[in-house]
Amino acid sequence: MMIPNGSLITATPEEGRQLAMTMARLVIKATQPDEAVRSRLRDVYANDAMALLQVGQTVAIEFATIAAANGYWRT
Amino acid sequence: MMIPNGSLITATPEEGRQLAMTMARLVIKATQPDEAVRSRLRDVYANDAMALLQVGQTVAIEFATIAAANGYWRT
Amino acid sequence: MMIPNGSLITATPEEGRQLAMTMARLVIKATQPDEAVRSRLRDVYANDAMALLQVGQTVAIEFATIAAANGYWRT
Amino acid sequence: MMIPNGSLITATPEEGRQLAMTMARLVIKATQPDEAVRSRLRDVYANDAMALLQVGQTVAIEFATIAAANGYWRT
Amino acid sequence: MMIPNGSLITATPEEGRQLAMTMARLVIKATQPDEAVRSRLRDVYANDAMALLQVGQTVAIEFATIAAANGYWRT
Amino acid sequence: MMIPNGSLITATPEEGRQLAMTMARLVIKATQPDEAVRSRLRDVYANDAMALLQVGQTVAIEFATIAAANGYWRT
Repeated sequence: MMIPNGSLITATPEEGRQLAMTMARLVIKATQPDEAVRSRLRDVYANDAMALLQVGQTVAIEFATIAAANGYWRT
Repeated sequence: MMIPNGSLITATPEEGRQLAMTMARLVIKATQPDEAVRSRLRDVYANDAMALLQVGQTVAIEFATIAAANGYWRT
Repeated sequence: MMIPNGSLITATPEEGRQLAMTMARLVIKATQPDEAVRSRLRDVYANDAMALLQVGQTVAIEFATIAAANGYWRT
Repeated sequence: MMIPNGSLITATPEEGRQLAMTMARLVIKATQPDEAVRSRLRDVYANDAMALLQVGQTVAIEFATIAAANGYWRT
Repeated sequence: MMIPNGSLITATPEEGRQLAMTMARLVIKATQPDEAVRSRLRDVYANDAMALLQVGQTVAIEFATIAAANGYWRT
Repeated sequence: MMIPNGSLITATPEEGRQLAMTMARLVIKATQPDEAVRSRLRDVYANDAMALLQVGQTVAIEFATIAAANGYWRT
């Protein structure tokens, strides 16, 4: 599964942001299914400035799509 | 072949996400047709934090296009 | 919390820009919750040219979404 | 020449994808006109994981523009 | 202050481009407020090929937002 | 000057692509005004795979804006 609930629609921007983070993580999981390897790499992400910034950029791109899908939760 | 079924339209966001991953992979394949080399590089992707994050970013960009093509599967 | 006030709507472009910076920072915080580690990494960001430029790029992407959400504050 | 046929319009998504790859390559060619140097660099691209992923990201961005130009080939 | 004049609207594309460069620079300034450090890092940007290219990419993203805000100055 | 002719509108996609390359180059020029330094860095760009790919990515982003400004030259 790549998208929880199978939908880009969320009730709030906050939930949209959480979905962006989840979607970004699930691509990593699909590319590297081995939990032990992912766990080791997470230690790298979380302690390396450039890797953390790269996480941030990917979440920003995923969120742009989710926000557009939700009409930016304007109403 | 760069796009399976020759269409950006999918029934669900989940399938759109799978298509994004496939499209990203097929560009790599077209640029490096040698399966043995790709297999060796896949070991690099799957075990390197920055490479995995880069995969994630490309999938996010491909998915943005697919999601727009599908009107974000709103209905 | 990933989005302060739970909304992408801001009164001005200036506030939108601040929100973009905050949203970018909160992804980092969610990925690395340990304040001591983040503090150490902030020293890296703030003194490394490529890291600072990467921060700038992520803020630009977050801001694009916020600006679209606000109809670019045209009126 | 930077865009073959001088148009972003293609009959199919598949042709749009091919155009994206061609447009990405022609920028490289315009920046480095020396065929011998490009040939040497192609060996680098095709055998380096990060370079291949970077190719993939650029193709994704070019394709986003082409897909929008073609109304995502919806009809 | 992150956006001079507090607006994304400019009279011309040229001014929009200048605004994009200023906005990109002000994010750096907000992230690293120490002028002496920034001055040292500017020497890095201006003499390193990858850093200069990264500056160019961020300005391109900022400009995309500003151009959309101004309806691409079409009239 | 950051945008030749002060406009994003071009007669053809081909000219739009040329404009994208010029706009990308003029940001570099504005950031590093010293012609001798730029000339040295150009040697780096043109002979380094990752730098060339980075040039390609920036041109793709600039072109996306120019193409949208021109309604993708559809008619």
